[in-house]
Amino acid sequence: MNRKTLDDALARGKAERCRFETLEYLRFSDSFGGEPRGTVLLPDGRRLPGYPSIGRIQSLARGLRRQYAEPFWVEEKIDGFNVRIARHDGRLYAFSRGGFVCPFSTDRLPDLLEATVFDAEPDLVLCAEIAGPENPYLEGSPPQVTEDVALFVFDALHAGDGRFLDPPAKAALGERHGLPMARSFGRFTADDQPALAALIRRLDAEGSEGVVFKGEGAGGRTKYVTGRSNVADIALCSEQLLDLPPEYFTNRLLRLALFADEHGEPDGATLERELGRAFLSGLGRAVARSREQGRVGHPFRCRFRERRNAEHFIAHLEITAGRRVRIAEGAPRAEGGYWVLEFERILQRMTGTLANVLAGQAQYD
Amino acid sequence: MNRKTLDDALARGKAERCRFETLEYLRFSDSFGGEPRGTVLLPDGRRLPGYPSIGRIQSLARGLRRQYAEPFWVEEKIDGFNVRIARHDGRLYAFSRGGFVCPFSTDRLPDLLEATVFDAEPDLVLCAEIAGPENPYLEGSPPQVTEDVALFVFDALHAGDGRFLDPPAKAALGERHGLPMARSFGRFTADDQPALAALIRRLDAEGSEGVVFKGEGAGGRTKYVTGRSNVADIALCSEQLLDLPPEYFTNRLLRLALFADEHGEPDGATLERELGRAFLSGLGRAVARSREQGRVGHPFRCRFRERRNAEHFIAHLEITAGRRVRIAEGAPRAEGGYWVLEFERILQRMTGTLANVLAGQAQYD
Repeated sequence: MNRKTLDDALARGKAERCRFETLEYLRFSDSFGGEPRGTVLLPDGRRLPGYPSIGRIQSLARGLRRQYAEPFWVEEKIDGFNVRIARHDGRLYAFSRGGFVCPFSTDRLPDLLEATVFDAEPDLVLCAEIAGPENPYLEGSPPQVTEDVALFVFDALHAGDGRFLDPPAKAALGERHGLPMARSFGRFTADDQPALAALIRRLDAEGSEGVVFKGEGAGGRTKYVTGRSNVADIALCSEQLLDLPPEYFTNRLLRLALFADEHGEPDGATLERELGRAFLSGLGRAVARSREQGRVGHPFRCRFRERRNAEHFIAHLEITAGRRVRIAEGAPRAEGGYWVLEFERILQRMTGTLANVLAGQAQYD
Repeated sequence: MNRKTLDDALARGKAERCRFETLEYLRFSDSFGGEPRGTVLLPDGRRLPGYPSIGRIQSLARGLRRQYAEPFWVEEKIDGFNVRIARHDGRLYAFSRGGFVCPFSTDRLPDLLEATVFDAEPDLVLCAEIAGPENPYLEGSPPQVTEDVALFVFDALHAGDGRFLDPPAKAALGERHGLPMARSFGRFTADDQPALAALIRRLDAEGSEGVVFKGEGAGGRTKYVTGRSNVADIALCSEQLLDLPPEYFTNRLLRLALFADEHGEPDGATLERELGRAFLSGLGRAVARSREQGRVGHPFRCRFRERRNAEHFIAHLEITAGRRVRIAEGAPRAEGGYWVLEFERILQRMTGTLANVLAGQAQYD
């Protein structure tokens, strides 16, 4: 990156200086001058490019035909949060999509990943999804992670050239160093519809979120999700009905209908019931919480190796969420060799609306 | 109304002069100077006040306790559109909520209402819901109207004082003149919870939309809808998922959950399935229409006594809906002694989004 772009970005508030303990770095808070949002510059000048958004196709057959004239690789899409991992001065850091050091992920890296790969390739940046029931950001969790969190590498690059390794090179790297990789289902073309449709139906039945397609040659990247991942998201988030952007729900409903239209549904009644329950169970939970506790919130729990990282994370929560978060008293507390943090994200609009309704107020809508 | 308020309203665009055939009248397009939106002034100076919004309670027990220290009347809420009916120069007119003469309702009044009541009370204004499967505005229809449309009077007033008759006086008027009235369920107090809850559950099972409470003394008016009316609305409108404000759906989901929480649900699995089907059937229909016709629309059909009224209505559609409506060729056509108009309201966002998706485009969301 040239010096002028960086100075302009800093002057215009598109980039900012950040600090995590002894690490001073720069992050792009917005895309600017061709640099994507989330790009990080380390003190030694190395650049971790912001992870690009991936377009979504919502019709498997027509989407693949339109997007891919050449072969593509198919990998599993994991329902977690995206981090970029790099080593600096002998220490591993995990950066969030926005380009901040994530104290939780950084703390847990020793549990999640063998660091030896960075001895062999000091310039490496791994892109990974961290997912599981004990994560501090997301309500959902993939079925293969039944406790705590796990890490799934899905991309790798070298800070020098900033270009993703192609899927075979990435797979070889993972194999060589025993990295935990997102599943790859192989190389296909848009003509392999029956096999791809069968794969997607299998992933749907397994509870997987879906797949990412990575084109060879000029082909870009796209993603495609299973029908039931939409139902699962609605079930997890319906208690937040008024707090999430309404498109969260409408987009998922439309994707579910498109999936059912394209792939058929062996048992339509079951799908209908699952969708209805996804809304009613979360909303019923919200109404009951409002009645019993006077507020609606979602509980989170996660564990840290180091107490000071839990405290960094608490400080981050207090700055970003303020009164929208209630941290459990005495947190973090020692348990099983970890520091456990429990907190609740308060759903302010659900809390306020249900309090008014249950106080008998009349609404004009 | 004083002259100055009217002149100010006209000058500031809050009121406008309108014409329907030979009738010249004024309507308030917005609330202004204490005058509600929809107020109409007839050429003889008579005033038809705009019909007020009615607040909604979403908890029956708590809402009634909070809103009513004194007794109240309970009447059925009908799922139709609101008109105010008055006679001028020997002719009956029906005005919409916004204060326009509705050519459809005005045309059909001779089929829906005995006009003799206006011989006895020339100054009368009847407030009524017009509802049924062949109406040009709404997708829904109450279960008791299985064809065409019907009219249900729910309020009456005299243009002179502009105040609603109290429910017993209104019922007596209806009785005396054989008017088609919305059902009244009698007079209650907030302590009559078991009887009111039983009434609401009966209406829910019947497919009724709900009730309106009209307080005696200082008590105002509120409304309360059944759980299943929310499911019915979602089933009718899910094909419009992206074209309606998303609150249309989120509000109904929350009301349904509150209803289920308060009144219990003898068969939760059936309700879940009905809700899931409400979304999936409409969305599936929209996807199929997009695939087959390249557009998503909702068909309407209604009948007129007079060809010229159908033409007035078509002109109104063309002005207000433009390309969002497709009028059937040759409309109106003569059928069974009526002039039948068929048209389709085009759902532009559903049409556009599904066309992109089914063309295989990738979306960034």
